[in-house]
Amino acid sequence: MNYFSSDFKLGILGGGQLGKMLLYETRKFDIYTLVLDPGDEAPCKIACNEFYKGDLLDFETVYNFGKKVNVLTIEIENVNVDALEKLEKEGVKVYPSAKTLRTIQNKGKQKLFYVDHNIPTAPFSRFAYTEEIETAINHGSLQFPFVWKSTQFGYDGQGVKIVKTYSDLEGLPNVECIAEEMIPFKNELAVIVARNVSGHVATYPVVEMEFHPEANQVEYVICPARIDKETAKKAQLIALKVSQAFNHTGLLAVEMFQTQNDEILVNEVAPRPHNSGHYSIEGSYTNQFEQHIRAILNLPLGKTDSKVGGIMVNLVGEEGYEGDVVYENMEEIMQMEGVTPHIYGKRKTRPFRKMGHVTIVNKDINEARKIAERVKNTIKVISK
Amino acid sequence: MNYFSSDFKLGILGGGQLGKMLLYETRKFDIYTLVLDPGDEAPCKIACNEFYKGDLLDFETVYNFGKKVNVLTIEIENVNVDALEKLEKEGVKVYPSAKTLRTIQNKGKQKLFYVDHNIPTAPFSRFAYTEEIETAINHGSLQFPFVWKSTQFGYDGQGVKIVKTYSDLEGLPNVECIAEEMIPFKNELAVIVARNVSGHVATYPVVEMEFHPEANQVEYVICPARIDKETAKKAQLIALKVSQAFNHTGLLAVEMFQTQNDEILVNEVAPRPHNSGHYSIEGSYTNQFEQHIRAILNLPLGKTDSKVGGIMVNLVGEEGYEGDVVYENMEEIMQMEGVTPHIYGKRKTRPFRKMGHVTIVNKDINEARKIAERVKNTIKVISK
Repeated sequence: MNYFSSDFKLGILGGGQLGKMLLYETRKFDIYTLVLDPGDEAPCKIACNEFYKGDLLDFETVYNFGKKVNVLTIEIENVNVDALEKLEKEGVKVYPSAKTLRTIQNKGKQKLFYVDHNIPTAPFSRFAYTEEIETAINHGSLQFPFVWKSTQFGYDGQGVKIVKTYSDLEGLPNVECIAEEMIPFKNELAVIVARNVSGHVATYPVVEMEFHPEANQVEYVICPARIDKETAKKAQLIALKVSQAFNHTGLLAVEMFQTQNDEILVNEVAPRPHNSGHYSIEGSYTNQFEQHIRAILNLPLGKTDSKVGGIMVNLVGEEGYEGDVVYENMEEIMQMEGVTPHIYGKRKTRPFRKMGHVTIVNKDINEARKIAERVKNTIKVISK
Repeated sequence: MNYFSSDFKLGILGGGQLGKMLLYETRKFDIYTLVLDPGDEAPCKIACNEFYKGDLLDFETVYNFGKKVNVLTIEIENVNVDALEKLEKEGVKVYPSAKTLRTIQNKGKQKLFYVDHNIPTAPFSRFAYTEEIETAINHGSLQFPFVWKSTQFGYDGQGVKIVKTYSDLEGLPNVECIAEEMIPFKNELAVIVARNVSGHVATYPVVEMEFHPEANQVEYVICPARIDKETAKKAQLIALKVSQAFNHTGLLAVEMFQTQNDEILVNEVAPRPHNSGHYSIEGSYTNQFEQHIRAILNLPLGKTDSKVGGIMVNLVGEEGYEGDVVYENMEEIMQMEGVTPHIYGKRKTRPFRKMGHVTIVNKDINEARKIAERVKNTIKVISK
């Protein structure tokens, strides 16, 4: 198959911002692309060759779309997996595979998968319904505090809750869920593993998510993570093990906790380009989007090292603002050294909505960290 | 004016490969874009918000297109300047200016401009018609050898010829032209200067064009140039002087000769992103396309330093092949360290047609040079 000719077609399920950044790279290689997305204003609309509007969870829609392409990938996990399974049987190359997506889509199954494959993860219990949790507590088989997680997608930010008392359970949807032990972690880390169709593997450096001390929100993604080499090596090896366990093709972003004893516990994975790899556009020899394309097209993988240190700051809507977006002090941050804003093009802001990100690169990661803080304190995503 | 909102519109004259790479950057900043190009298969077609098909040299077409936008730029110099002049008068921001384009479009005027502004350039004579050259030689006011150059665009590679004897003059079009002294240069260099609307200036490092020893064709563009610091400094200062002389807004690529005595002579300029700056996509803190956008939108200019050494190899059609293009050994070059191909998406190849470029980055420029040679010797642009 010749990817560098117009008779090859790549399909992407989801036409959001990740898809858009993926499409930049397909342009570089001149790959013909088709995108399916339910939105009228999908960011991918003006960057692909053919755009189709449709429901990503509808069997027929996904199946019919998939029949048009040679290779099918995703930029969002929440798609109809039955359709992918049928497409695979009919010869379409689907990366990530239907099997992997089915496991990942259910957080309970995902956790069991780690246990089955001897991959360290936080202890947990699985429940068919949230209401069963109370019984478990009453019987002494579960103790406060724990993290409640809905196993399914689609609760829009309400899929995770820290539960410290009975009253925290009130109002939670009565769905399939897990109760996970709270890990008082030292660091939250992530490693992106790329694996191409032939099984060649390349691992990106470990990145560190730095949290706001009060808001408990990721403020900075820092590459390389400011951790010791041994822990970094361990994290990369575990990420590699996860990728191999899934027999995964494409990118796999593995989110992990570094415990107080420097143990590594896998939290969850994303089988696609990931927020934790955005720094790579400016920081790495091969950015994560180009690498994903290389992997799923079975091209040789590119070098995953960093050219320079990189920090990513998410641009989210300020609290108290809703409506037509304004980026306040954009020019001020563009004056700072090594700063590149990425604006996602969403017309409306609302509190905490992801509106873009900013990358700060510098040969000295500590210098980058200082500039990142200035960026964070300067730019404001507000409304008119 | 808020560039980061949909009521701002940027127009680009020309929808070729340079425009396409420029459009990647407008996506990053979410800038609304309109493109005018005569071609049905213009590479920009799928990367802009609105595409218009039309003749770039037609007054009405360019004028009507320009009226739709706030800022108008070019990716090709050969456009209708009268229309740009009228648009400027009516308040459209045009970068580069009509005045600059008018000077650059005529190589005779361009050379006179250098003389008028005390910018070193190779000695030359100007002729209204090629046939006058013979008279000048007969009268002893011009000596062989010299470089004949048509002053106007549009001779498709036939605008320049080295003339050593009378017979070399045969067959040349009888048009306005210059006869330029042949410079036995040590190096051909280029410097890109960025200047924003407020007049802030940033200069990229000097790059070096390395020629094939026999074919007299640029084989590699190398950044940084392997020249002494003093000469580099001199080249940058002269480039800066040229940018200021033009009162230029946007990017100005200044091509220069380094003579045997390490003098710098300006050869010609391009008032836009340029082939000599393609390395910057992978090599620089701020790539030339992002920088051009920053400059013409009067945003702060980005850092022009390199993260790593960069070399660009042009991908041109092999001699003896014409038709549907095939990129032979593409996977082999993608296996090499720090190699990124950029395929322009032209369906048909023909001898020496520019079909793409390949960038090689490495912390060690000598190592990059070795890999570049392997790339050059491996990939072949042929036909089916």
